[in-house]
Amino acid sequence: MATATPSSPTESRAQPRLLTGDRPTGPLHLGHLVGSLENRVALQHDHECFIIVADLHTLTTRPRRDQIEALPGFVRSIVLDQLAVGIDPQRATFYLQSGVPAVYDLAILLQMLVPKTRLEQIGSLRSMARAAALPDDAMTMGLLGYPVLQAADILMARASVVPVGADNEEHIAIARECASVFNELYGELFPLPQARTTRSSALPGVELGPVGSGAKMSKSLGNAVYLDDDAATVASKIRTLGFDDVDRRNEHDAAIVSFARAFLGDDEAAGLGRGLRSGSTSVAAAHDAIIAAVETRLAPIRARRRELEAQTGLVDEILVDGTIRAREVANGTLARVRETMGLEPLWSGLVAATEARAKARRKPY
Amino acid sequence: MATATPSSPTESRAQPRLLTGDRPTGPLHLGHLVGSLENRVALQHDHECFIIVADLHTLTTRPRRDQIEALPGFVRSIVLDQLAVGIDPQRATFYLQSGVPAVYDLAILLQMLVPKTRLEQIGSLRSMARAAALPDDAMTMGLLGYPVLQAADILMARASVVPVGADNEEHIAIARECASVFNELYGELFPLPQARTTRSSALPGVELGPVGSGAKMSKSLGNAVYLDDDAATVASKIRTLGFDDVDRRNEHDAAIVSFARAFLGDDEAAGLGRGLRSGSTSVAAAHDAIIAAVETRLAPIRARRRELEAQTGLVDEILVDGTIRAREVANGTLARVRETMGLEPLWSGLVAATEARAKARRKPY
Repeated sequence: MATATPSSPTESRAQPRLLTGDRPTGPLHLGHLVGSLENRVALQHDHECFIIVADLHTLTTRPRRDQIEALPGFVRSIVLDQLAVGIDPQRATFYLQSGVPAVYDLAILLQMLVPKTRLEQIGSLRSMARAAALPDDAMTMGLLGYPVLQAADILMARASVVPVGADNEEHIAIARECASVFNELYGELFPLPQARTTRSSALPGVELGPVGSGAKMSKSLGNAVYLDDDAATVASKIRTLGFDDVDRRNEHDAAIVSFARAFLGDDEAAGLGRGLRSGSTSVAAAHDAIIAAVETRLAPIRARRRELEAQTGLVDEILVDGTIRAREVANGTLARVRETMGLEPLWSGLVAATEARAKARRKPY
Repeated sequence: MATATPSSPTESRAQPRLLTGDRPTGPLHLGHLVGSLENRVALQHDHECFIIVADLHTLTTRPRRDQIEALPGFVRSIVLDQLAVGIDPQRATFYLQSGVPAVYDLAILLQMLVPKTRLEQIGSLRSMARAAALPDDAMTMGLLGYPVLQAADILMARASVVPVGADNEEHIAIARECASVFNELYGELFPLPQARTTRSSALPGVELGPVGSGAKMSKSLGNAVYLDDDAATVASKIRTLGFDDVDRRNEHDAAIVSFARAFLGDDEAAGLGRGLRSGSTSVAAAHDAIIAAVETRLAPIRARRRELEAQTGLVDEILVDGTIRAREVANGTLARVRETMGLEPLWSGLVAATEARAKARRKPY
C-alpha cells in the first residue's frame, strides 16, 4: 500500500522496467479498475514501474484553453485513484508528461525515422478523432504523431514492458519499430518494448448516456461508474443494467452478465446468466449480488482515498518527486541518444573549442 | 564587418526581428551570395538578425550516421562563409538549431494546431524528398513536419521578418497560420511573420554535373561555384558556360547571360547577350568579363575568410555565444507559450503545493 511519505524507488533497479498510464481526461472508473489498475497493482511487485500522466497526449484531441484548464483537477484525481487502488509510490514513479522536456526532443528525433504512411494505417487514431468529434480532414499533425510521442515516452524510460488495451497495441508496434530503426541506423541503444495486452474484454458501461446497452464503459459516453462515486451512486448506476428479451436470445453476455463476470467470477456469472434466462433469478437479485461484489472492491479503495485526500499536498508531492526522477532518467537517455546519433559531438565539440580559445586568451569563459 | 571578439548584440532591440538561415548540407556558393547573403548583409543594419544553422532540418532528409558526421564541418563552413561575406556577429546572432531545446517543445505544441492535410498540400516537401532520392511513400513524419519545425524556429524568436526564396514562401505561410491559430486559441502572443521573398531569379549552375545547362545552382547537382573556391577553380568553372545555337534562338537568358546579369548588371548583360547572338562578342570574351566581375566580389570575401580562419576557434565561439543567446530567447518564449496555454500553471501549481507541504512539515524541499 502507499505510504504517506514518498521517496525514490531503490530496490527495483534490476527488475524489468514497465511504462503505463492514462490521459488525464477525467477520473478513473470501474472499467479502468478491472482492465488495467488491478493489473498494475500486481505488476508493481516484479517491475520497476513508470506511470505517466499523459497531459500532452490530451492536447492531440483537446487543445482548447478551457480543456487545458480542466487538466490540474484530472491530473490529481488520476494519481489519487491509483494510490487508492494500491499502487505504491515507493515502488512506482508517477510523473507528469509535460514536465519532462527531453520527451519533446526525443519525439522530434524519432519523427525523422517513421514513414507518414505507416502512421496513416493506424485505425485507433481515426477512432480517437471521431471520439473527439473531429472530422477526418481535421486530423492534426499532432494526432498523427500521437504514437511517435508515445514511443518517446516509452523509449525515454527504456521500458521493455508496456501493459495496454488491445486498441493501443499498434502504438506499441510503432514504438518497437522506432527502437529497432534507431538501433539499426545509429547503434544498439533501446530495448524493444513489448505490449502486454490485458486478457479480459472491456467492461461495458451502465445504461446511462446516449448510446444505450453494450458500449464499452467510457467517461466520454457518460456511462461510467467512477472509483470515487459513493455507495448509493454506484448502486443506482448498476441498477440501470437491464435484461430483456434481446439479451435472453443473444449468444454473447448481456452487460449485466459481463459485470457479474468481472466482479463475481466466471462460474457465478454463468450461473447468474442461466438464472436470468430461465427467470429463476430476478434482475433485482442480480443487481444486489453485483452491487455487493463491487462494494467489496470499492469500499477499501474509497476509504484509502479519503485517508490520502486528508494528507494535503501528498499527491502533488508524489507527482513532483516522480517527475523529477523521470526527468533524470529522460535526460540520461537523451544524452545517450544524442551521443549515439552523433549530435552531441557536434555541440560539445563547439563548446570544447570555445573553452580552449578562452583558455588560450586567458579569459574565463 | 565582423570583428574578432564577438559580444552579445545590444543596440538593435528596437529593430524588427528577422530570422533566416540555411541547412548545413555543404559550403555556400555564388547562388547563395546573390540570392540571399548580400541581402542579409544589407538587412542587418536595420533588423535584429537571428541566423539559424538548421542542423535538425538536415535530419528530415539526411538522418544517417555518416550524414550526421559530416555536420560539424558544414556547420563551421556555413558560419565562416557568412562572416566572410560581411555579416557582423555583433549585430547578428548565429546559432545552432539543435542546441536550443525549447524549439523541440514548441514544435510539438504547434503540431497540435496544424491539420495534416494542410501540410500535404506543400509541394516543396515532395521536391525535397525527390532531391534526397526518397520515394514518395518513404516521406517521414519528420519531413511532413518540416514547416512546423521551421515555424517553431521563427516563432521562438518572435521574428516578424523572414527572408526566403520563393520555394520557401509556403513554409512561412504555415508559420503565420501557427501564430494566428495560437493567438486565437490561447491569447495574443506571436507577431505574424512575413516572408520577404528575394526579387532576383535563382542563379543557374555552371555546366558541370549530370543535369546540363539551365538548372539552378545547387551543391547537390554538382554545378556550384563555392565561395571558398580559389580563383583558378572559379575561372575554370565559369568557362564551362557555353552559348550555342539553342541559346541563340531562345527568348530567355542563357546561363552565361544570367551570370552576366548577376555580376555585371542588367545593362551590361543585355549588351553582352546581343553581342553573343550577333557574334560580335566571343564566348571567351564573355567569360573573361564575368570572371573579372565575380573575382571583384569574391577576392575580398576570400581574403576575409583567410583572416577569420587564422583566428582558431573564432567561429566556434561565435556559434556557442549565439546559441546561448538563442536559448535564452527561446526559453523566454517557451515560458510565455506555456503560461498562455495554461500548461505552466499546472506544473508550477504542483510545485508550489509541494513546497507549501514541505514548509508545513518544516523540512527543506
